Amino acid sequence: MSKADLAPFSHIAIIGLGLIGSSVARAVRRAMPAMVISGYDADADIIERAKAVNICDHYHAGFDEHLRHADLVMLCVPVGAMESVAQQMAGFLAPDVVISDVGSCKQSVAEALRRALPDAHIIPAHPVAGTEKSGPEAGFATLFSGRWCIITPETGGDSEKCRLLQQFWQNMGANVEFMDAAHHDRVLAITSHLPHLIAFCIVGTARNLEIEDVDQSEVIKYSAGGFRDFTRIAASDPVMWRDVFLSNKVAVLEMLQRFSEDLTSLQRAIRRDEGDALEDWFAETRTIRRSIIEQGQDDPGDDFGRNH
Amino acid sequence: MSKADLAPFSHIAIIGLGLIGSSVARAVRRAMPAMVISGYDADADIIERAKAVNICDHYHAGFDEHLRHADLVMLCVPVGAMESVAQQMAGFLAPDVVISDVGSCKQSVAEALRRALPDAHIIPAHPVAGTEKSGPEAGFATLFSGRWCIITPETGGDSEKCRLLQQFWQNMGANVEFMDAAHHDRVLAITSHLPHLIAFCIVGTARNLEIEDVDQSEVIKYSAGGFRDFTRIAASDPVMWRDVFLSNKVAVLEMLQRFSEDLTSLQRAIRRDEGDALEDWFAETRTIRRSIIEQGQDDPGDDFGRNH
Repeated sequence: MSKADLAPFSHIAIIGLGLIGSSVARAVRRAMPAMVISGYDADADIIERAKAVNICDHYHAGFDEHLRHADLVMLCVPVGAMESVAQQMAGFLAPDVVISDVGSCKQSVAEALRRALPDAHIIPAHPVAGTEKSGPEAGFATLFSGRWCIITPETGGDSEKCRLLQQFWQNMGANVEFMDAAHHDRVLAITSHLPHLIAFCIVGTARNLEIEDVDQSEVIKYSAGGFRDFTRIAASDPVMWRDVFLSNKVAVLEMLQRFSEDLTSLQRAIRRDEGDALEDWFAETRTIRRSIIEQGQDDPGDDFGRNH
Repeated sequence: MSKADLAPFSHIAIIGLGLIGSSVARAVRRAMPAMVISGYDADADIIERAKAVNICDHYHAGFDEHLRHADLVMLCVPVGAMESVAQQMAGFLAPDVVISDVGSCKQSVAEALRRALPDAHIIPAHPVAGTEKSGPEAGFATLFSGRWCIITPETGGDSEKCRLLQQFWQNMGANVEFMDAAHHDRVLAITSHLPHLIAFCIVGTARNLEIEDVDQSEVIKYSAGGFRDFTRIAASDPVMWRDVFLSNKVAVLEMLQRFSEDLTSLQRAIRRDEGDALEDWFAETRTIRRSIIEQGQDDPGDDFGRNH
């Protein structure tokens, strides 16, 4: 493997030093130590916290001529902030720089970046990885190891630059898949966006019970019966997720409609004592779990080892 | 601590050697080694598998005079099977034996056991612990450590026998709480039954997409975005859960109705671009997560350590 393969870019500007941005910084430092890492964040507190954990070579609160050194700019901000942040960069970009991102929706982000930077080399991407934590302290270098990164090039995208971005993600341990942005948004609506919406919903439903006969402390106390797994997902960043649901509205509403129809049919089966219908439904869902473990996308340990 | 405190019973009959029954056997052997453990299961294959992992002192496929040796009988069968199993025991029980169970619904189980055994000392209980695995191999001795066990005595229950059962669960590491059966069923409807129903539902929704443009392999491939956590819960035993939903129908349908109303309001907020309403809802749900971690009912590690 040549040196170029090891570091397809020489200088990355990471915009937004939260969970994902700070994980990219750590993974670059580990996998491509020759790359220069410039960290950008509009929040002075985040910059200070990122400095404290020492994840970048340089830190900047705003855009200026320094940005021109970067040959890869990666936006790691909530998807609703992509357009205004990209607009602020215009005028400070190197001519050949690759603009990419890590947003969970790809159609709306591609359009937003294209509006802000009409002539740039824009290659949207989405690493399907994360935790419920936020902030520069929450990131870690292996977040992307064994996970998928979906790259959604625009029609007629520069294929050499796509190859470099692919190499970049592979160097950090990710598996790369190319996909149409609209298709990405439908796949992620069911595998990520709808699960998060449902988790946020049920945790809120439980919270609102405190005025009834079941109080909050009981919900927390007996959460090991299943509820706690939803609370983990529902602890994810509120602004990030607000933006995801609004940006991928059409696909999310469609999947939500399908889910609601299915839930209504299960509700009807419970009300009518249709045990066979319930058992058939539940037996089917076991097979999906088996496939996910076989493909290495989750740990087969009992209860993630929490009880051992 | 006297010897009596260490082993409040001398001989336990465990009826049903699945995940919970086999975990009770292992926990008894570890915490109260002087107790005799008799394992009962109507399924010859389960008996053979239990023998292979050596968790009981004696094994029986059906009830006969041997059962009279037990001073504690614990039913670890699906809640819908409790009544017929208890009926089969009648005539083989010691006069002072305590009849208990581990079912996830308590009102219906208490009524079923009382119908089958009108004169027995029945003390229903529910250890709030489990994994998505099934069978005698899936159990482990520490399943109940640090978890809650809810005991729901009938009005006028024998308080000395309740104290013995409490000691029994505490010896296995559980915290014990006494509760009215109806209240138990409402608390568990929100903390356990509804989360399971929703997980079963969304995994089925995703499965049924395979006829559409998003295929099954993609759902599995990109499950790390949130979906995989639901598949774990939705891999739980289909018969056990069928019985839970039918046995706790009133409380489950009520909690489901509340959830559906909340989900509809979030759906409406997405459709109308009401970002503030979404963000407020999501910010609230974070606080519940924090409380669960503070109370030791989940692990605060990133993503349960799956990415480290």
